Parts: sequence; C-alpha cells; structure tokens
Amino acid sequence: MARIAVDAMGGDHAPDAVVAGAVDAFHRGHDVVLVGDPARIEPLLERSDADLPVVSALEVIEMADDPSRAIREKKNASITVAAQLVASGEAAGMVSAGSTGASMAASAFVIGRLPGVGRPAIASFFPNRKILLDSGANTACRPEHLVQFAVMGAALAATHHGFDLPRIGLLNIGEEEGKGRDLEKEAFRLIKALGGIRFVGNVEGRDLARDTADVFITDGFTGNVMLKTAEGASQLVLRLLERSLADIAPVSVADDVISALRTALNPETVGGAQLLGTRGVVVIAHGSASRVAVANAIGLAAGGAEQGLVDKVADGLLRAAAAVG
Amino acid sequence: MARIAVDAMGGDHAPDAVVAGAVDAFHRGHDVVLVGDPARIEPLLERSDADLPVVSALEVIEMADDPSRAIREKKNASITVAAQLVASGEAAGMVSAGSTGASMAASAFVIGRLPGVGRPAIASFFPNRKILLDSGANTACRPEHLVQFAVMGAALAATHHGFDLPRIGLLNIGEEEGKGRDLEKEAFRLIKALGGIRFVGNVEGRDLARDTADVFITDGFTGNVMLKTAEGASQLVLRLLERSLADIAPVSVADDVISALRTALNPETVGGAQLLGTRGVVVIAHGSASRVAVANAIGLAAGGAEQGLVDKVADGLLRAAAAVG
Repeated sequence: MARIAVDAMGGDHAPDAVVAGAVDAFHRGHDVVLVGDPARIEPLLERSDADLPVVSALEVIEMADDPSRAIREKKNASITVAAQLVASGEAAGMVSAGSTGASMAASAFVIGRLPGVGRPAIASFFPNRKILLDSGANTACRPEHLVQFAVMGAALAATHHGFDLPRIGLLNIGEEEGKGRDLEKEAFRLIKALGGIRFVGNVEGRDLARDTADVFITDGFTGNVMLKTAEGASQLVLRLLERSLADIAPVSVADDVISALRTALNPETVGGAQLLGTRGVVVIAHGSASRVAVANAIGLAAGGAEQGLVDKVADGLLRAAAAVG
Repeated sequence: MARIAVDAMGGDHAPDAVVAGAVDAFHRGHDVVLVGDPARIEPLLERSDADLPVVSALEVIEMADDPSRAIREKKNASITVAAQLVASGEAAGMVSAGSTGASMAASAFVIGRLPGVGRPAIASFFPNRKILLDSGANTACRPEHLVQFAVMGAALAATHHGFDLPRIGLLNIGEEEGKGRDLEKEAFRLIKALGGIRFVGNVEGRDLARDTADVFITDGFTGNVMLKTAEGASQLVLRLLERSLADIAPVSVADDVISALRTALNPETVGGAQLLGTRGVVVIAHGSASRVAVANAIGLAAGGAEQGLVDKVADGLLRAAAAVG
C-alpha cells in the first residue's frame, strides 16, 4: 500500500480539517503520515480512534512568503518535510492544501522533476471527470511543453479513470487543423506525429459538455481561465436555477434539486489537482479544503501511487522526447 | 430612427428565418432594409404583412470562400452590399448571420475602421449582461490593443446597458496586480493610467458570477475559450440538472424548470455579438440564428445606432491614443 505524506499545517482550515480528513482516509484503508507540529496534531488525533504516525516539522510557510525562497530556507516547514519523505522514498506521494506555489516549489527543489520535463503541469478534474492541463502552473508555454502535457495527461487519465487510450484534445478556438496561435499550430503538428496516444485534434471550451475528448491540453494561462470560467458559469447557472425554482417548484423540491446539483458539481469529490512531471505523486488540494476534500485528495494521491502514475508519466515523456527530437 | 441593413442570405436558415426576424423587428418599430436575392426574399415578404424595402444582391459568399478575398471579388454579395449601405450612410448599421470572417472582412474593406483602431474586436454578451471582448477576432494581441478594447467595451456597456461608468476588468489568472503574462502586466499598467473609464483591475473567469465587473477585456484567443467554456459548462450543469430532476421532481415541474433555465441562458435573447472599431454598427448573429435571434440582433444594432455607439467608441479611442501615446 502506498504511504501518503500529508502536510497537516497547509490550508485555511489546518490542522483541524486536514487531520480529520487524514483520519477518514485512514479508515478507508489508506496509509497516511501526518507532517507538522505534533503539539497541534496529536490532541486532534487523540480525539479520534486513529493512531496515525506524525513527523515533526515546526516551521510554517506563510502565504506572503516567496515560495521558491521559503522552500529552500525553511528546511523544517511541513511541506518541505512532506516532500523530503517523498524524495527519500518513505512516502510515495504527498498532499498539501497550502499555497500552490509552495507545493510546486517543494516538488521542484525537494522531490525533483522527471528526466526531460520542461515544465511540470497542474492537471485539474472537471465534475464530469474530464481532465485539463496545464491549469495554471505555466503562464507561457512552448509547443514542446504542450506535447509533454499531452503524454502526461494521457498517463493520468489512464491511471485515474482506467481508460485504455484516453482521447487527448488540444484546446483551440475552432476544430479545423490550422486554427489558433502559432503555439497551437505547432503543438498540433507535434502531438499528431506522436505515437502511443489517441489525439482527437482541436477541441473547444464547449467540448466540456461533449463526448469528444477526455483530456484538454493548453498553456497554463488559458487553462486557468478555462477552469475558473467553468466554475463561474456553473455558479451563474445555479443562481438562475434558484430564481426559476422559486417561481415553479415547491420549496422542498427546490432545496433537493439545488443540493443534488451542488453535490454533483462539488470539487471536493476529487479533492485536488495533480502536479505532473515530478518524481513522486503530488496532489494540490484547494486552500479552503474541508475534511471531505482532504480525505479524497489523499485517495487521489494513493490511487496515483498504487497505479504507477509517475512511471507512466516518465514513459510518456520518453516517447515525447523521441518524437519532438 | 436608425435604418439597419440585414444580410438576408447569410446564415444556416437564410433567407426564411432572416426575413421572418426582420419582419418581427419591423413590427417592433425598427427601420429595416433587406439585402439579397429579391426572387427569394419577396415571396417570403408577400406572405407577411410587412412591406420592407429590398436591395438586390445576387452573389453569395460560401463558407468555404476565403473571406477577405470573397469580399473584394464579390461586389454584389449580400453582405458586401449591406456593408456598402452602411458605408454610404444609407443605413446606420448592419446585421449578418453569415460567417464571422465575412462580416469582419466586409467591415474592414467596405465600411472601414475608425481612426487609430489597431484591431476591431468582437464583443459578446453573457446571459447576465456581462460583456466580453475580444471574443475571437484577434488570436494575438498587443497591450495597446487591450487598451482599445477597454474603451470600446466601456462605450458598448454605456450605450447598451445605460451604465454611467461601466466597470472594466482585465481577464487574468489572479486578482493581484503583476499577475499574468507580459501582455496582461503591460495592459494593466496602460489601462490603469487611462482616464475616463472605471478600471477595476484583474478579474478571473469566476467573476462571471460575481458583481465585480461589467466588461471583461482579453485577447481573442482567451476570450473565445472563455465564451465557449461558459457555454460548455452551462450545458454540463443543465445535463446534471436533468439527471437530478428526474430523481427528485415530478415530470411537469422538471420540464418547467429546464425550460425556464434554457430561456434565461438563451443566446437568442441578445441575438448577436457586436463588432467594435468600425465606422458603423455591425452585429454578427450566430450562423444558426433563428427568427427570434435575428429580430433581437436587429434590435441590438438599432439600439447601438440610436445611442451613438460608433461616436462613443471613437471618443474612447481618442482617449486611449492620448494615454498610450
């Protein structure tokens, strides 16, 4: 079973929600080690019936800290120590609800990148299981980065969803080949020439609701806009729905409908995004992650570790390197 | 009253839906001239009780034609003739459901750009009245283009919504100044220095559902992704809603809820997007525009013409030119 190191001190509701989520994950059969201040973690554990191991880490990285500098200077911060456990092989993966920048820096400087990785990328999950990368790690990308995202995303969809050959789409502003910026034109050519993945060509934002692609590939700026727009549009529809329901349906039905929909759209069901391209499984949970989100994020990390996500990503990168030359 | 030239031959359902929509707009008090093949338009008019003027234009621009070339070579195409009516002042604006590329080319080569316009931009409306530009005219933009989009979008929100000082937001991947690519960093600095508009700084896709900005400014690639993602996410939520409703609500309630929501989200309520930066009002209706969409697109064009949209855009551009230097 894959051991997952959990940064108990990262996130808006840490350590309480993180420890509670870790205990839930433990009860689901996961092997979890908590990293942080034992004086704050152990009283929380004592109230539960789970005797999880705790690794002491007493420094804290603040949101205002520069992540790269903080990771290098604060060797005893909870996220740094969690990353050290992954780097040493004591853990197969880690989960943090601290700042995305700190998770990325800890991955880069402590765990390290897989051979040949140009840019590690953040892969996010939509409520209908579709995967988007990069959803925000790299604001500017070159075509060869998008090729790497294609193989890394294919590896994630294969391990996480069990798809044999996930369908990879290049996010663009039209379906025809030749659409988009120079970035998309060149990435299209390179991904098309790549073996071992199922490239379905250009896709658009509206393919989010279509059965055309399992993985959306784009640069981190566009991906971040896509992710947050989907969130904004969903909220907007929910708001319009609440108004319609108030006019049409009995209150009890309306409440049930809204609540079922919020559950279906709830990002906590997945629990976090995956950082791909590092030498270990890294799951970045939302800063506001609840107990439920943390438990699911640990499940996501454990699933990735047990299904050999890192090795599959490494294999894909080798293939991409051969194709890009 | 502002006369609007309508390309009767453009769109998937032309001329039938276009003529029917034009008749509806006429009955709402709009001054409409139809442009296209009289042999196909007049029988449709005869069946209605509206005696609209028809200007003959017998050539057709096919979807496969290169738009710029077709507009220059097919002087007697319906969209070219509609644009000529605007250029000569016989009409104050035009509406076409033909290809976006053809509308843009007709605007550029026949109507002409306002002084100093770097890039005309397509401004789209979200269901909650928020405006996005550029939503697809220019895949690559420089910071000074975004400054022009800011003043053009402010002019549109002022005329269309009657807002005194619409709130202008720069689409980005975080709220703090300094976020984004070089494009956003420099555009932020330039727009902030601009007088006469209310710049609220960086906004994100999730601000679509927040009361933070009335107008979203971005390049045409990112804007197109945002627009289509909002559409895709809305469809996805509708699909999840249908599933929840099937379990929870009586069929009649479920049908009413879905139908009310589809109405609230219906892009036909606005009818089209506005091309800004040209010397006349140009509304680009969706290729699949129905009678309802065409009628509303004509209302949108007439409203812009009557409220002095082109002059307000020109004023904004002068201000932007002074600020950018």
